Amino acid sequence: MVENYGICLETNGFGEIFDITDKVEESVKKSGITNGMVNVFVPGSTGGITTIEYEPGLRKDMPELLEKLIPSNKPYEHDKTWGDGNGFSHLRAALIGPSLTAPVAAGTVRHGTWQQIVFMDFDNRARSRELIITVMGE
Amino acid sequence: MVENYGICLETNGFGEIFDITDKVEESVKKSGITNGMVNVFVPGSTGGITTIEYEPGLRKDMPELLEKLIPSNKPYEHDKTWGDGNGFSHLRAALIGPSLTAPVAAGTVRHGTWQQIVFMDFDNRARSRELIITVMGE
Amino acid sequence: MVENYGICLETNGFGEIFDITDKVEESVKKSGITNGMVNVFVPGSTGGITTIEYEPGLRKDMPELLEKLIPSNKPYEHDKTWGDGNGFSHLRAALIGPSLTAPVAAGTVRHGTWQQIVFMDFDNRARSRELIITVMGE
Repeated sequence: MVENYGICLETNGFGEIFDITDKVEESVKKSGITNGMVNVFVPGSTGGITTIEYEPGLRKDMPELLEKLIPSNKPYEHDKTWGDGNGFSHLRAALIGPSLTAPVAAGTVRHGTWQQIVFMDFDNRARSRELIITVMGE
Repeated sequence: MVENYGICLETNGFGEIFDITDKVEESVKKSGITNGMVNVFVPGSTGGITTIEYEPGLRKDMPELLEKLIPSNKPYEHDKTWGDGNGFSHLRAALIGPSLTAPVAAGTVRHGTWQQIVFMDFDNRARSRELIITVMGE
Repeated sequence: MVENYGICLETNGFGEIFDITDKVEESVKKSGITNGMVNVFVPGSTGGITTIEYEPGLRKDMPELLEKLIPSNKPYEHDKTWGDGNGFSHLRAALIGPSLTAPVAAGTVRHGTWQQIVFMDFDNRARSRELIITVMGE
């Protein structure tokens, strides 16, 4: 069995982190699938999906780390192609990755207690995002 | 068809790398599924799953790289929240990611000869871990 | 239903980026599966799979970023094990990851318009690669 859902988010960009765990859980519940996998995917090249403990400290540490690894104030070749100045956003997204697949068992997502499924918006402007949730199993 | 298994590990943390390829293969064999996908997931926010050639050199290079990118001796905002001093562990885990999905064909995991499925424990203390293996297919 | 396909590539290494979106789409079409997931996997430890906007600027920015994060001209312990001098290739591959899972709906892969599925070859020599595509669903 396969069921698809969308998660809509209004984002501000610049590394903003969204805890989407509850919405992923809701999708699994709605699907009626009790055993299988759930995939979360961002159909766009300036956002990433991973897990993190969603608490105020790490919500500052993570953007600071990415600013150190992939500075936003450095010129990138991408910026010459489009002039939109978000080369750093694309590179951060390619590094973190657009997709997460997690186990579903006994009707719930088997994440850790202090581990949340998060979407990170790396773009340099506000956007309307729709993430795609796919639940597959039996 | 969907089958779930657990892999139990006693870990020391600090970037220790575990080759879990054989245990993933065993789960696939036990499931009887010959064609599909296998997902490996760590239900916790201070460990990561990826693949690497599991040999002594890279087992030193990988922790050294992560120490360079995300130093353990730097103060993080996370450490102010909980006082457990493992902000660096959380950041490394979010970067590497908690999940890997690999193909199953002819009853085996289709990884490369020199490519092992590994769990990396980034925490700053010993732990008992249980990884979740989900085999789905036919 | 599960269907497997291979994508063959002749690669030059050193961070070369291949847009494999069309080949992944073709596999999905061939499978006849209209709703589910598609997994792309590299069975080897010196290549990575992610998504990026495949345009000339980022095709220079991405290798430059990885050269900064994981320099190729630095000695690694791995190089002492095998003497093949590609320690940096293995580390880049472990960081980006060997696998991507994306949603399939209405018979197509639900990636963004400016988001391509890419294979990055990090090795330090030309190779013949076969990537594995697994389409699962109904």
